[in-house]
Amino acid sequence: MTPMKVPDIVVGRLPLYLRSLTQMSDEGIEITSSQELGGRLGISSAQIRKDLSQFGEFGKQGTGYNITYLADQIKKILHVEKIWDVVLVGSGDLGSAVAHYAGFIHRGFQIVAVYDNNPDKINETVGKFTVKDVRQLKEDIRVMQVKVAMLAVPAQQAQEVSEDLVTAGVEAILCYAPTSLTLPPQVNVQYIDPVLHLQHMTYYL
Amino acid sequence: MTPMKVPDIVVGRLPLYLRSLTQMSDEGIEITSSQELGGRLGISSAQIRKDLSQFGEFGKQGTGYNITYLADQIKKILHVEKIWDVVLVGSGDLGSAVAHYAGFIHRGFQIVAVYDNNPDKINETVGKFTVKDVRQLKEDIRVMQVKVAMLAVPAQQAQEVSEDLVTAGVEAILCYAPTSLTLPPQVNVQYIDPVLHLQHMTYYL
Repeated sequence: MTPMKVPDIVVGRLPLYLRSLTQMSDEGIEITSSQELGGRLGISSAQIRKDLSQFGEFGKQGTGYNITYLADQIKKILHVEKIWDVVLVGSGDLGSAVAHYAGFIHRGFQIVAVYDNNPDKINETVGKFTVKDVRQLKEDIRVMQVKVAMLAVPAQQAQEVSEDLVTAGVEAILCYAPTSLTLPPQVNVQYIDPVLHLQHMTYYL
Repeated sequence: MTPMKVPDIVVGRLPLYLRSLTQMSDEGIEITSSQELGGRLGISSAQIRKDLSQFGEFGKQGTGYNITYLADQIKKILHVEKIWDVVLVGSGDLGSAVAHYAGFIHRGFQIVAVYDNNPDKINETVGKFTVKDVRQLKEDIRVMQVKVAMLAVPAQQAQEVSEDLVTAGVEAILCYAPTSLTLPPQVNVQYIDPVLHLQHMTYYL
């Protein structure tokens, strides 16, 4: 469908477009424009049209975008028209908050198991999960064929756990640990570290 | 010092460099190179040299960077050689995890108060904080002259709370709510939404 490789920065904006379109749909809006969408996101309408044009033709000049249709198309492009199984490693404060978060399922993801290496936490209940021993992690991932993982372990343990995840077949890791992982290039890694964002902003203060 | 405006994408990489330099320093390393730093971060050494050159001269050709010196300089550039007071709004699962997180203080930030609008949560203890009524938020921010806030409230409440924050004098907001805020352009906003990262990665799966 898309013979040219789409820049990663463009791919990264699609989830943002999808989130706004879903919000509009929830508000009962049926049709939108690149201007309206851009206004909500603080992105220029030209940028949005250019980004979307990389993937096809989603609206007619002058009539705007049908929100349900465009959202469905973006879901397909991002492969979230299905629900991905996700394993969560780490059941501390942050892992526990992630396990309780209700916002995954409507956007393409469901946590299927939670792991920890702390004997005090294993077999405890976190949300609707019974925390499993991290030693079961690799076998479970192979059996369940899980491709996506979230990592909420201390920074010192993140590299080792991530290597286990990859060995077992995980191809995408969302890392909450404040560290940079060194993994094979075919593995997708994204990071969430609130301090990076805070320091980015204080530059301007 | 820097007459030209530095691109925001370059500014955004500085916290990453600082985090890696701090880790190296914790490991007892004193001198590094753009190659070594780049290897840890998956960023080219040329990119790192180019980024740093926007802010000055931090190492001599062939002798590498003194890690402590470079880290101190980046801290000054990012204005985190001091500790910023931060208010946290929202004491649910995520807000509570953020309130417990011990990783802020060594990197330039300390939470000074936690707020909620839920009568069941107000006056409860979260970590070392007693949750305050969100109705006190604006006055507290003015009195304490807080410039930085973290927002861990439901998406539907985020816009209203963020407007209160800005009215009271906050200039930088880290928003954990999965929504886009519409605020005056001089306010810095950064977002953390794990699903955006997950959907970005599933594009490649």
